[in-house]
Amino acid sequence: MEKTNLDLIKAMNWRYATKRMNGIKVPPEKVDRILEATRLSPSSFGLQPYTILVIEDHELRKKIQPAAYNQPQIAEASHLLVFAVWENITTEKVSEFISHVAEMRGIPADTLKDYQTAIESKVIGNPPEATFNWAARQAYLALGTAVVAAAVEEVDATPMEGFDPHAVDTVLHLKAKGLRSVALLTLGYRDTENDSLVRAKKVRREKEKLFVTLP
Amino acid sequence: MEKTNLDLIKAMNWRYATKRMNGIKVPPEKVDRILEATRLSPSSFGLQPYTILVIEDHELRKKIQPAAYNQPQIAEASHLLVFAVWENITTEKVSEFISHVAEMRGIPADTLKDYQTAIESKVIGNPPEATFNWAARQAYLALGTAVVAAAVEEVDATPMEGFDPHAVDTVLHLKAKGLRSVALLTLGYRDTENDSLVRAKKVRREKEKLFVTLP
Repeated sequence: MEKTNLDLIKAMNWRYATKRMNGIKVPPEKVDRILEATRLSPSSFGLQPYTILVIEDHELRKKIQPAAYNQPQIAEASHLLVFAVWENITTEKVSEFISHVAEMRGIPADTLKDYQTAIESKVIGNPPEATFNWAARQAYLALGTAVVAAAVEEVDATPMEGFDPHAVDTVLHLKAKGLRSVALLTLGYRDTENDSLVRAKKVRREKEKLFVTLP
Repeated sequence: MEKTNLDLIKAMNWRYATKRMNGIKVPPEKVDRILEATRLSPSSFGLQPYTILVIEDHELRKKIQPAAYNQPQIAEASHLLVFAVWENITTEKVSEFISHVAEMRGIPADTLKDYQTAIESKVIGNPPEATFNWAARQAYLALGTAVVAAAVEEVDATPMEGFDPHAVDTVLHLKAKGLRSVALLTLGYRDTENDSLVRAKKVRREKEKLFVTLP
């Protein structure tokens, strides 16, 4: 797959955090592939302690906009993804996960007892904020995958932290679903006339600074 | 790039959290491409408040191993990446970042005043743990990109949280560098004879559960 990763770097250079989108819809098969790549993201223990809300409906996106400083790309996008972590990771949820793994691999669940205990010691009984922060990191792994997958599809994507999580949770009734929003991602196409960042040079830390080769 | 993303999904299905590696070295050009894709990861404000330590030296990896429950892939890998966030995000660091953006884009730094203020209000004066957790999320975006980029290169990669951050920081003198380790990533090749997970079926949350389409 040599050629592919050259394309990956090209795709990563092509993308940017799009501030204005043009309303054109992303074809369903592209959305599906972006979501499938995201679904395949790794996570600690493979637990994936989050849910991703997929919002195409324009009215609902307009309702979310005020909770995100009225950023235009929320309404101008084709789709909005809301990455939301599980508020409560219970022994039942862990047990359900273990059963799923056992079933998928065709092995008895009790052969996974040590694995189950390891997960429980990570997610049960710790301070809720510590567990939340751990779950949020897993969601960010998935967010990173989604951004890359969108770029490969030549779909613009804007990862966003600039929003009020409580307000978004309220609009989407996430508390009742046991979820807390941690990041947004718009999918769509850049508005080349109105986005002042379209032609801005991409800035990243220089590799000599970002990477430190040891020893 | 239609075909490319089909490859991305194939690559994501091919990869898994490799527990045993065979010691074969990853060619430098592949490592370079994985690092370059990682460098291009998005981050909040574009700040990239982390440093990635790149360790090829076998002796140093052996020294890290006890801090990571002696997991064999650390020594059996070709390279170990340590994702470490900045312990202290100072106004100087923000100012240095703003200067870099201004220089790269050929604009005066004072046109970026609002941007600078926004970054400062996020990273200065908040509880250190809140800033740390925020920085860790950014590092996880980069970790997610690195995992995808490795898969595209057909290089095995194991993202790892199973280690004692304080112990790793001590071995690598990270505190003196103002860094705190948050995740490890080994790069190398699967040991198909000794890794019991080689033939294990990949388990992910079913798309009907992971994604919730609203309204």
